[in-house]
Amino acid sequence: MKKNILVIPGDGIGPEVTTWGKAALEKIAEIFGHEFVFDEALMGHAAIEVTGEPLPDETLEKARKSDAILFGAIGHAKYDNDPSLKVRPEQGLLKIRKELGLFANLRPILLFDELLQASSIKPEILRGTDILFFRELTGDVYFGEKTRSEDRNTASDLMIYHRYEVERIAHKAYQAAQQRSKRLCSVDKANVLESSRLWRETVQEIAKQYPDVETEHMFIDNAAMQLIKNPKKFDVVLTANLFGDILTDEASQIAGSMGMLASASVGESTGFFEPIHGSAHDITGKDLANPLASILSAALMLEIGFGLKEEAKLLVDTVDAVLKEGFRTHDIADQTTNRFKVLGTAEMGKLVLK
Amino acid sequence: MKKNILVIPGDGIGPEVTTWGKAALEKIAEIFGHEFVFDEALMGHAAIEVTGEPLPDETLEKARKSDAILFGAIGHAKYDNDPSLKVRPEQGLLKIRKELGLFANLRPILLFDELLQASSIKPEILRGTDILFFRELTGDVYFGEKTRSEDRNTASDLMIYHRYEVERIAHKAYQAAQQRSKRLCSVDKANVLESSRLWRETVQEIAKQYPDVETEHMFIDNAAMQLIKNPKKFDVVLTANLFGDILTDEASQIAGSMGMLASASVGESTGFFEPIHGSAHDITGKDLANPLASILSAALMLEIGFGLKEEAKLLVDTVDAVLKEGFRTHDIADQTTNRFKVLGTAEMGKLVLK
Ligand SMILES: CC(C)[C@H](C(=O)O)[C@@H](O)C(=O)O
Ligand SMILES: CC(C)[C@H](C(=O)O)[C@@H](O)C(=O)O
Repeated sequence: MKKNILVIPGDGIGPEVTTWGKAALEKIAEIFGHEFVFDEALMGHAAIEVTGEPLPDETLEKARKSDAILFGAIGHAKYDNDPSLKVRPEQGLLKIRKELGLFANLRPILLFDELLQASSIKPEILRGTDILFFRELTGDVYFGEKTRSEDRNTASDLMIYHRYEVERIAHKAYQAAQQRSKRLCSVDKANVLESSRLWRETVQEIAKQYPDVETEHMFIDNAAMQLIKNPKKFDVVLTANLFGDILTDEASQIAGSMGMLASASVGESTGFFEPIHGSAHDITGKDLANPLASILSAALMLEIGFGLKEEAKLLVDTVDAVLKEGFRTHDIADQTTNRFKVLGTAEMGKLVLK
Repeated sequence: MKKNILVIPGDGIGPEVTTWGKAALEKIAEIFGHEFVFDEALMGHAAIEVTGEPLPDETLEKARKSDAILFGAIGHAKYDNDPSLKVRPEQGLLKIRKELGLFANLRPILLFDELLQASSIKPEILRGTDILFFRELTGDVYFGEKTRSEDRNTASDLMIYHRYEVERIAHKAYQAAQQRSKRLCSVDKANVLESSRLWRETVQEIAKQYPDVETEHMFIDNAAMQLIKNPKKFDVVLTANLFGDILTDEASQIAGSMGMLASASVGESTGFFEPIHGSAHDITGKDLANPLASILSAALMLEIGFGLKEEAKLLVDTVDAVLKEGFRTHDIADQTTNRFKVLGTAEMGKLVLK
């Protein structure tokens, strides 16, 4: 199989982890005899520094022409501390999601048995958890009109949904639920928000087309609580952009660490694969980042982007084997014992490749 | 001390738990020689059934005239399942918050040592946690304009903040932080939302007036994760209406159960005290609800509403003593052992009074 893959390392720890996601893809190509052709492009703070734009036209063009994109992370403390800056790294990520029509963000909460201890949640609560989030990614308060009054004393963001936006992601989520345990939980705030009432109505309609799937509707506040109280009760979770952002970060504690979670954004064309962790400027360049989320993002690219199940499985199994042998990066090591062999980013990356 | 207290039992388990919050106040009046005069009023589904309105004028009038309000819960499955209904119970709660100017919702995460085991989070992660949330309560996407297009295919809610709204709650939160461990974490989504950028700017300004308090700004997705990863790192948490709704429900797992958490809404005049749990229609009338959150709401009324510290402490200590003796309601009992004496709502209520 021949594929063109665009690598966008982005900001912070993005470059150091993406190196290993890319290396994993190269290794898979070698083993299975595929031809993966790589190109690279700038986005975020890294792109602003060079071109003044968070998403240069050249990056967008390359993205459109590629078969899949491997992305690192975005963001920089400079902008976080100065809310008045007009050009911001995150605009690059939001724009590429919109431009490529990446309306469905899949975030599987993959639980490695070996990491049950790394979580702040009790192992007996976690064991057996297997959740697949469908987060809507190109609508909601992320993309609705923003305003700031002239005196700068009033600011607003429009939380808005169109029925077709809810329908298309609902179909994807229901189809996935049919392949899994046939349970779907849709999360909204329909007791307060009109956009959530549209969301709930639409999901109720779509549900009728999937009578074999059991649907539950839950309010976001309750979901944020239930997710840690009893994660096993969830299977496919379908939710809006903002609520999905919050719930999936929260759910990273189920997997032991944010450093373990990968996500796939799909929709109209090219798929976009990235860790769910951020740019983590506090540990950038210190060889402390966990490269496994980038390697698992590569696995998602193989499986969801290219339909290469066996190749994806090899990557996931290798990560599992490395964990079984007791190797850990800092984020997933238990600080209180010496049971683990704690590795830096590069050592962990190399080990997985071996 | 003479005080007029309005009791609004509301919907679902509201009436059965509020009975015990009220009884606790009566007992305190008796012990300390205060005169608490009680009145009662309707709100939510209960009010719609009788008057057609979720917040009848009579209730609002009584509320304005009272010195404090003890509230139960709101909501009904009928409305949750039918997003097209125009008159909804929650409108009553939102309207009374707005009408009484209850802009600051204080949610202390009170950890009883005895309940460390009841949580899904590891006891060693929880031990020593003591968080006080300040949730903004009369702005945000809760109160911004709502629209639905004529073809019903587009729906929106305006997420909007005015600078003064952020300022007044920030002052309250900083003042509380000065009385506590002098750390404040403000939660927003300033990397995406304009209203959050106004929020962050404003908090940065107000922070200058409290140089003895250490301020941290955190994105909501990260906060939802950190809260369960390492709850001890938080002290005073200041956040917007929607984010506060989500974070405080999530935080209820820190306290072992939603059934243990009370909240105080304050602002321009009369204080409003309520459990953070909802109407829980699935257990209504089954003598399964936990009355402790209502009793602890009464304690908050005594302390924050009336400045009666000793009286409040007696109530909290009594709850603590009852837990120490091994008494539990269903939500906080460990199902796997027989160590606890599991009580119904009424038995637990009576026990605390004794
Ligand atoms: C960086 C930020 C804009 C982004 C988001 O909120 O979508 C991130 O948190 C994510 O979840 O991918
Ligand atoms: C019932 C609902 C409107 C309410 C809210 O979202 O504010 C509740 O969840 C709360 O937290 O008090």
